Amino acid sequence: MSGHHDGVKIQPDRLLADIETLAAIGDTGDGGNCRLALTDDDAGGRELVVGWMRDMGLDVRIDSIGNVVATRAGAAGASAGDGNSQAPVMTGSHIDTVGTGGRYDGTLGVLAGLEVVRALDDAGIRTRRPLAVAFFTDEEGSRFAPDMLGSLVYVGGMPLEDALDIVAIDGAVLGDELERIGWAGGAAVPGPAPHAYVELHIEQGPVLEEAGVTIGAVTGVQGISWQELTVTGQPNHAGTTPMRLRRDPAYVAAETIGFVRRLATGLRGHQVGTVGRLDLHPDLVNVVAARATLTVDLRNTDEAVLAHAERRLREHVAALASAEGCEGAWRRLARFQPVAFDPAVVALVESTAERLGHSVMRLPSGAGHDAQMLARVCPTGMVFVPSRAGVSHNPAEFTEPEHLAAGAQVLAEVLTELAGVVE
Amino acid sequence: MSGHHDGVKIQPDRLLADIETLAAIGDTGDGGNCRLALTDDDAGGRELVVGWMRDMGLDVRIDSIGNVVATRAGAAGASAGDGNSQAPVMTGSHIDTVGTGGRYDGTLGVLAGLEVVRALDDAGIRTRRPLAVAFFTDEEGSRFAPDMLGSLVYVGGMPLEDALDIVAIDGAVLGDELERIGWAGGAAVPGPAPHAYVELHIEQGPVLEEAGVTIGAVTGVQGISWQELTVTGQPNHAGTTPMRLRRDPAYVAAETIGFVRRLATGLRGHQVGTVGRLDLHPDLVNVVAARATLTVDLRNTDEAVLAHAERRLREHVAALASAEGCEGAWRRLARFQPVAFDPAVVALVESTAERLGHSVMRLPSGAGHDAQMLARVCPTGMVFVPSRAGVSHNPAEFTEPEHLAAGAQVLAEVLTELAGVVE
Repeated sequence: MSGHHDGVKIQPDRLLADIETLAAIGDTGDGGNCRLALTDDDAGGRELVVGWMRDMGLDVRIDSIGNVVATRAGAAGASAGDGNSQAPVMTGSHIDTVGTGGRYDGTLGVLAGLEVVRALDDAGIRTRRPLAVAFFTDEEGSRFAPDMLGSLVYVGGMPLEDALDIVAIDGAVLGDELERIGWAGGAAVPGPAPHAYVELHIEQGPVLEEAGVTIGAVTGVQGISWQELTVTGQPNHAGTTPMRLRRDPAYVAAETIGFVRRLATGLRGHQVGTVGRLDLHPDLVNVVAARATLTVDLRNTDEAVLAHAERRLREHVAALASAEGCEGAWRRLARFQPVAFDPAVVALVESTAERLGHSVMRLPSGAGHDAQMLARVCPTGMVFVPSRAGVSHNPAEFTEPEHLAAGAQVLAEVLTELAGVVE
Repeated sequence: MSGHHDGVKIQPDRLLADIETLAAIGDTGDGGNCRLALTDDDAGGRELVVGWMRDMGLDVRIDSIGNVVATRAGAAGASAGDGNSQAPVMTGSHIDTVGTGGRYDGTLGVLAGLEVVRALDDAGIRTRRPLAVAFFTDEEGSRFAPDMLGSLVYVGGMPLEDALDIVAIDGAVLGDELERIGWAGGAAVPGPAPHAYVELHIEQGPVLEEAGVTIGAVTGVQGISWQELTVTGQPNHAGTTPMRLRRDPAYVAAETIGFVRRLATGLRGHQVGTVGRLDLHPDLVNVVAARATLTVDLRNTDEAVLAHAERRLREHVAALASAEGCEGAWRRLARFQPVAFDPAVVALVESTAERLGHSVMRLPSGAGHDAQMLARVCPTGMVFVPSRAGVSHNPAEFTEPEHLAAGAQVLAEVLTELAGVVE
């Protein structure tokens, strides 16, 4: 924070133009994008972005799961005896989308990283450490589960062979598709650990907009608990069955939804709880349901609180079901522990935003990001910019151009600070 | 209740045999029956039952909507000056079924009526008034809506032309199907009003079984209110949207279900309330729903209480939706006022059952029956017998043979009492 790198000035128009150009690939005609992982449109996006990377003179490496890492050289060996001085400061994100995606989710982080490289070139700045801009395969997980797959493999969280065997929702095998589109590269996974990783991303939630704040210094990623509850009761005629003789799984499901709301609002640590899926069987107007199936999505930044919420939910539902003469059965769909980002990186994002005159607040990420995988191997942080109305994974996804520019400038200065400037 | 007709003794074996024989037509192989209205199997059932009617020497008339009325002559003119002494005491029900029906729903009332005729013949009893056994077209409404159609037309509640124009769920036109199966008769509708109407039916609910009671003296039919509620909110990311910023229609739907339960248990008059159908959109584990659609089935024997329940429901949901920042929109699906049966007929059913040594209780019907249509034109009542576990409209539908026999004997004595015995 010596001010040595005041010369890094990103040019918003270039960034906006790149976002537009990439959005033309897989354009859904309604403002949205569909570049599901390892489809032809994903390949089209890859060609475009890697073309830009090569045009900038970056060293582009493609690994065996299709992750792309483009590196701007650092002032190698400047610090004799620092054996890890070649580890780059990395930024990046993903360019795949969900089926009805917007044009900012992921792409912003990748294209802003490239704009940072251009801005460094413009200013003639050499960084001590290399600067790498990456995009990771299949962050969304919409076609091949799980999500954040490429970065998971990059950090050694899943063996390559297992990843290549994953079968898509459309029946395709990941390894086959990677070969088919020509993006199975030679670089080894797990990949080398960066010196640090900082990712710029749209918030995908309403917190910054509601607070009127431009920059989010992301403190970590919420832990996620996905469970499915099946409540079995007694199907009955809606007219002939007195209330006291009912064993109604729809009632247990409803009371569960109410409890999830009270649980989430009552717990600390940014607890959220959502019942987004609910199906009744036989789902008829005049039949007390035989069965209700619902999902509960619980998230918290604090693992202990999240585990506590899960326990309280199970206990409460057991009591509800028992009182109604129903059976409740739980199935775990997914469980991820919370990830805390590096305090120094979080503080650097915050102080940089403040120095640039932007309003800034700390907040956790409610969504998953590649950064949470990189956090396993290096100091990591994220920069959020506001999402209009909190909307994402939707053609209406939008972030104001001045917020995109502000986020890219914060990213540029944070990366330059972490990489060090050679005088 | 002079005991003059103690000689009427129904023979359970004949009744059970008839039920078995009719159940072989449209046998679904799992103990159930499928004789949807005006299908070939319905026609097969009609041929069989009308054959029995003719074998008994009854005067069989088929009307223009396919209702069948088979009459055993009374001692006509026995009471000079009583211009209406030819109006028969009528019993009956229906022989059509739902798609996955049982073998007792409807058929019991028709076949027990025929067994009463046989028992009167066996005992050599002449009744003052004629005794008619009817079965009405399309009681179930499963193929042609609305239900209780034939009896509705019989009592003048729907013009014949409108009924004949009804289009089935399979696209067929009712009048065409009636002609095709050869059951469009010449008798006029509306048909002549009976002197009284008494229908034996399985309860289709658990009340008698739970109370350990053999005979139900049915006091009337509950009024029915079917409404559909659509709640529109704001779809949001389940991870990134703080609880305080949510506008969650699933939560409003859940609180509505809870309110329906409290409303139904808190109101008098056999109030029931059911949410049997609920759909969330987009119905994803990690998305706060954009929309919830649910149905509310409210029933009460008291029209004022039912209307009050509807008002309270709408008021409460409006407040719930408003508090959550959602919009609620109601659509009425069906509304029928309660029907009260004739107090004298109800009392006669009750006293007859008591005299025969059966346990008996008064209860309303939660389901619709042809009797509620006949109640528009003559003193009407019903006799219920227990349904095992309250199950109906299901192959598992079952009533103990001794309960079938008890119900048929009560029916026989009630009909004979109403028709009067010629000494």
